[in-house]
Amino acid sequence: MTDFSAWIHTCQTRVEEVLAERLPSARIAPQRLHEAMRYAVLGGGKRVRPLLAFAAADIANADMERVQYAAAAVELIHAYSLVHDDMPAMDDDALRRGKPTVHVEFDEATALLVGDALQSLAFDILASQPLARDAATQLSMVQLLAQAAGSRGMAGGQAIDLASVGKPLDLTELEFMHIHKTGALIRASVLLGAQCGHLTDATATALDHYAKCIGLAFQVVDDVLDAEASTATLGKTAGKDAAHNKPTYVSLLGATRARELARELRADACAALAELGAPAERLRQVADFVIERTF
Amino acid sequence: MTDFSAWIHTCQTRVEEVLAERLPSARIAPQRLHEAMRYAVLGGGKRVRPLLAFAAADIANADMERVQYAAAAVELIHAYSLVHDDMPAMDDDALRRGKPTVHVEFDEATALLVGDALQSLAFDILASQPLARDAATQLSMVQLLAQAAGSRGMAGGQAIDLASVGKPLDLTELEFMHIHKTGALIRASVLLGAQCGHLTDATATALDHYAKCIGLAFQVVDDVLDAEASTATLGKTAGKDAAHNKPTYVSLLGATRARELARELRADACAALAELGAPAERLRQVADFVIERTF
Repeated sequence: MTDFSAWIHTCQTRVEEVLAERLPSARIAPQRLHEAMRYAVLGGGKRVRPLLAFAAADIANADMERVQYAAAAVELIHAYSLVHDDMPAMDDDALRRGKPTVHVEFDEATALLVGDALQSLAFDILASQPLARDAATQLSMVQLLAQAAGSRGMAGGQAIDLASVGKPLDLTELEFMHIHKTGALIRASVLLGAQCGHLTDATATALDHYAKCIGLAFQVVDDVLDAEASTATLGKTAGKDAAHNKPTYVSLLGATRARELARELRADACAALAELGAPAERLRQVADFVIERTF
Repeated sequence: MTDFSAWIHTCQTRVEEVLAERLPSARIAPQRLHEAMRYAVLGGGKRVRPLLAFAAADIANADMERVQYAAAAVELIHAYSLVHDDMPAMDDDALRRGKPTVHVEFDEATALLVGDALQSLAFDILASQPLARDAATQLSMVQLLAQAAGSRGMAGGQAIDLASVGKPLDLTELEFMHIHKTGALIRASVLLGAQCGHLTDATATALDHYAKCIGLAFQVVDDVLDAEASTATLGKTAGKDAAHNKPTYVSLLGATRARELARELRADACAALAELGAPAERLRQVADFVIERTF
């Protein structure tokens, strides 16, 4: 095992433990809701957003004991968005992380409430113990996550996505959608990880640029994988974009150019880290991980 | 106009202004989502939770300029819960506050995202400017709202409600459901209003008891109105509980005893305020308002 894969394993284990501990037990009422919340969150996923939070923490000398809660909060927001996104009113998907989606395994009403309650839990965790050097900074972290999740962030991106089905978007419009839909929460993951430590304005600007590039690269790779990988490999339905006539980087650029674009975005992301030296090594490695993933 | 009705009008106007200002303009992308968010929140509702926050603020000498943001945050959580609750997967209702529900006026996917984004906005507002005497107190306010909204609060209450349709609940089980579904957010409204000022532990305990009684009384009156008032008066579909075979205070106790219970709960709520003297007058008046309302 390389040093990096050991690190990934440590981070994934850590965030899994925090999530397992902070999600209410399925023995506590309402049992079925809690069982469904745990089903939606635990035991799956690459945990890319937590990895970004942990990697960014290196830059700011942040304590892993603190960062793990910021990592759990962003992962809960991501998990809630998947549960709602998979519902019949949205993407209507039956498979996620190799398992039946929440509304299929439980029912639609439960899926709706699972997503709602996971969002609340994210803010509960982010507010519930000292994570930053002072409470004012931590309040600004709550605000950052709320804005990243909201109508001018992730939820807004999903609205743009829905409105774009079957419409010819150009590359600028596609980028605008993804900066909201995926990019906002990825940016929040990076910044929240770093804000658990000591973060200067100059470093925050560099991280912001890194996060923007990685967020887009993540989406470009997602589009390539949706077009080329199998459902078994992805653990979610492959080929959905073409089936739904959704504009993607592959439909606009072709797969070869899309793969090139992902590599360019990685280079751009790493260039933003140039001034930060050795502490940025994990962020560079996570950038590679995001680009080279196969699921 | 009595002093109290003038005060209600001032509070309602104030919270409406804050909401109108903090909800993104329908001219900002994604326009349709923002239009639907404004549709869901503005221009309707009794604003009972904001009234409770403003009334509780009197106890703690809290500045209205601060309390208005706490009031807006709880109202946004309430508004999001109505949007999701009205969806076909939940109560499947077409009418709310005298208008078509969000999923009817727009579509289901938009209603889902409206609810999601309103929840984020509530936390954004609660974290975004100094509301309490220090940032640590304000963080605990975020935590309080998150827990009140989550799986062991409001969302949990809705899950219990769904699971109880067609089942014979006894009075204890019905109370357990409502303490979560309605009571948690009402309690949060009262405590958040007071936490904008200076709140002692003894006063917090008194307010907690007041809020528990008022939360239940609110629900008992809701059940009586659902059974006895018209759809036109309520601005939402009347007679739903019986139609859905839902256990209510009226189905368990009969309307006469239910009305008595509401008055007993009001007396109990006001007894909790006895030590607090004149500054608790607004809370007593809001208790009357909650019990005597006809819609």
